Amino acid sequence: MAGPRFITLEGGEGSGKSTQARLLAEALRADGQAVVLTREPGGTPGAEAIRGLLVTGEPDRWTPWSDALLMTAARVDHVARVIRPALARGATVICDRFIDSTRAYQGAGRCLEDAALIDLHNEAVGLWPDRTLVLLFDEAEGLRRAAARGGVEARFEAIGADFHGRVQAFFAQLPAAEPARCRAIDAAGSIEDVAARIRQALA
Amino acid sequence: MAGPRFITLEGGEGSGKSTQARLLAEALRADGQAVVLTREPGGTPGAEAIRGLLVTGEPDRWTPWSDALLMTAARVDHVARVIRPALARGATVICDRFIDSTRAYQGAGRCLEDAALIDLHNEAVGLWPDRTLVLLFDEAEGLRRAAARGGVEARFEAIGADFHGRVQAFFAQLPAAEPARCRAIDAAGSIEDVAARIRQALA
Repeated sequence: MAGPRFITLEGGEGSGKSTQARLLAEALRADGQAVVLTREPGGTPGAEAIRGLLVTGEPDRWTPWSDALLMTAARVDHVARVIRPALARGATVICDRFIDSTRAYQGAGRCLEDAALIDLHNEAVGLWPDRTLVLLFDEAEGLRRAAARGGVEARFEAIGADFHGRVQAFFAQLPAAEPARCRAIDAAGSIEDVAARIRQALA
Repeated sequence: MAGPRFITLEGGEGSGKSTQARLLAEALRADGQAVVLTREPGGTPGAEAIRGLLVTGEPDRWTPWSDALLMTAARVDHVARVIRPALARGATVICDRFIDSTRAYQGAGRCLEDAALIDLHNEAVGLWPDRTLVLLFDEAEGLRRAAARGGVEARFEAIGADFHGRVQAFFAQLPAAEPARCRAIDAAGSIEDVAARIRQALA
């Protein structure tokens, strides 16, 4: 399959992104592709160190701009040391969360301007995915799944329903707003059903 | 003295900024002013945690943009939690390093565009000093002083003479380039001589 080379999965807590990213990597490897599966925030020792600052502490530990800048600092490291080198040697890169999560959580969720976050990304990171799969699902169901899992990002989950509503609304409008790059994936149903929809969206 | 309320001290390693910031705070307090003396990177628990990531590790631990974004994330926290509240209650704030250090070290030193760093500052931080004192001195002498002191920022000092030359050139041109805000301070001579020049520049 000569499909997109840099693929990101996006969506709210409990959308099943991480599981689907792993299944997609397995499917593409079975298809003979070299695949690098990675995630944000994290993916390099430096980015993991920044992630440690981000996912712990009180919900108001960081102001919205500090949060966005820390996320972007980690992304710069991850892109420079993992993603660009992998693409350069011909691998497909699957990344669990990327710029659209910053736009959703720090932008829509914490009320930073989307245009300012896009400018920052273009200036500091300068790389957009070839294809972004946006996993859409019932928000209340997703938070139940995430709570049942005891997610590490409890700080984000503690911020409240208004915040999650804005995040979910951002993801919901993204595929129609940026149709050249983004595809909506219905994340309801079994893991296998969702995996099949993802493979179809990339076909 | 009804002078500037937010004062920053800038200059290369070994310029004596920190000592002069402390002496200036003492002089203004003796004059009856409420003074908050602070420094970057650092100044809040969050910013100190980020500083911990920045001042340790190998010289190439962070890419230039990661460095600049971490510095700015720390600055956002510092401004929101210390500098703006202090200014709002009528205090004078003296800060050892601020935006001009990012422009010098990550901009001139590590070849990021000055205009991009200024845009980022305006977007994420949005506060400029009323007065910036740029301590200028012989570069070789400053590095000797810093080495003798065994400065904690050994990572920056290890990067090499070309880097320090570009940093020093940035500071040297700054007072003439931004005369409304910045003043050149000759940092040669005794601590008392430099302190007197600083008080004169603020009079």
